[in-house]
Amino acid sequence: MKKILLVGAGGTLGSAVATHLRQQHDVITASRSDPAHPVDLGSDDSVTALLQSVGKVDAIVATTGAVHFGPLGEMTAAQFDIGLQDKLLGQVRLALLGQHHLNEGGSITLTTGILTEQPIAQGANATAVNAAIEGFVRAAALELPRGLRINAVSPSVLLEAWDSYAGFFPGFEAVTAARAALAYQRSIDGIANGQVFKVW
Amino acid sequence: MKKILLVGAGGTLGSAVATHLRQQHDVITASRSDPAHPVDLGSDDSVTALLQSVGKVDAIVATTGAVHFGPLGEMTAAQFDIGLQDKLLGQVRLALLGQHHLNEGGSITLTTGILTEQPIAQGANATAVNAAIEGFVRAAALELPRGLRINAVSPSVLLEAWDSYAGFFPGFEAVTAARAALAYQRSIDGIANGQVFKVW
Repeated sequence: MKKILLVGAGGTLGSAVATHLRQQHDVITASRSDPAHPVDLGSDDSVTALLQSVGKVDAIVATTGAVHFGPLGEMTAAQFDIGLQDKLLGQVRLALLGQHHLNEGGSITLTTGILTEQPIAQGANATAVNAAIEGFVRAAALELPRGLRINAVSPSVLLEAWDSYAGFFPGFEAVTAARAALAYQRSIDGIANGQVFKVW
Repeated sequence: MKKILLVGAGGTLGSAVATHLRQQHDVITASRSDPAHPVDLGSDDSVTALLQSVGKVDAIVATTGAVHFGPLGEMTAAQFDIGLQDKLLGQVRLALLGQHHLNEGGSITLTTGILTEQPIAQGANATAVNAAIEGFVRAAALELPRGLRINAVSPSVLLEAWDSYAGFFPGFEAVTAARAALAYQRSIDGIANGQVFKVW
């Protein structure tokens, strides 16, 4: 049984990941609105406080982060920066600070998405942000000490969110959050390092 | 003959690109310290002023942008954000604002680098930033109207900079800035869209 810190457990994906991982592991959930473990991934102080409150862990998982969706022709740099600060730098901040709170052989698992490789209209920010996270994972994996590992999970659009997003994803095949959750277990309990687990 | 706006012409790569493109085109050079066309890619107002001063162009090229180099184990989110704001968002800002100042069929060419795919120690920020720019190019290419195109050039470490950077790039093959400059011409005068031209 591993001790796992899961940030973003309040979302559709995060709650499915928590449910799946709890079959075998001790999962501590955190999110912006979590009563026991509130955290703002936009703040070094907030992330540090969370990490100190939970102590050393065997795995850190992030299933959170917002990006900007909108037409390229109207997009501003400030809108583009939303995804850079929230989904990208938020997850990177958790990884950078979290690396020092992992037991030997521990892992970090971040979340990207199918848009990295398969762009949609209005999704330029998402594609860039996801690609950056996958790039970070690729590079960080080679530099982590003590047998630490880092991977990303790249789900397709979730079936549970399909009613809201179907119009943006014409002809895409949605996946259940439960299926996506398997990839997080694979990252945590396997030996992969620097990988992107595509759930599509 | 095309009218080309080149931002970053003060650097080693940019000056080689300017020299090469001037064989066939009208090249307007801009940079942070350019007396005629100073620009700060960190500022919407500065970029807008530049674009208005040069009028409509057939191509926009960026050969500029700083990232943070440093050990992953000591990297802070604030340091990681340097590359996000400078090389990534700076070039994206130029593209987002510049798209409206391009003649029909015009092109945008951004600059990434070999670290996107081949990480080095201390280079996690560079790999993430380059990957994000390539992701942006991949998505934006599909959404640009009026026959506009966007590509990236990904050079290896430059021979002209080898004395300073050799220690970071063990066994890498440096390329001349003049060779890298060819790829910018290929982006501008060819028909490619959404491509990454690797110069390595």
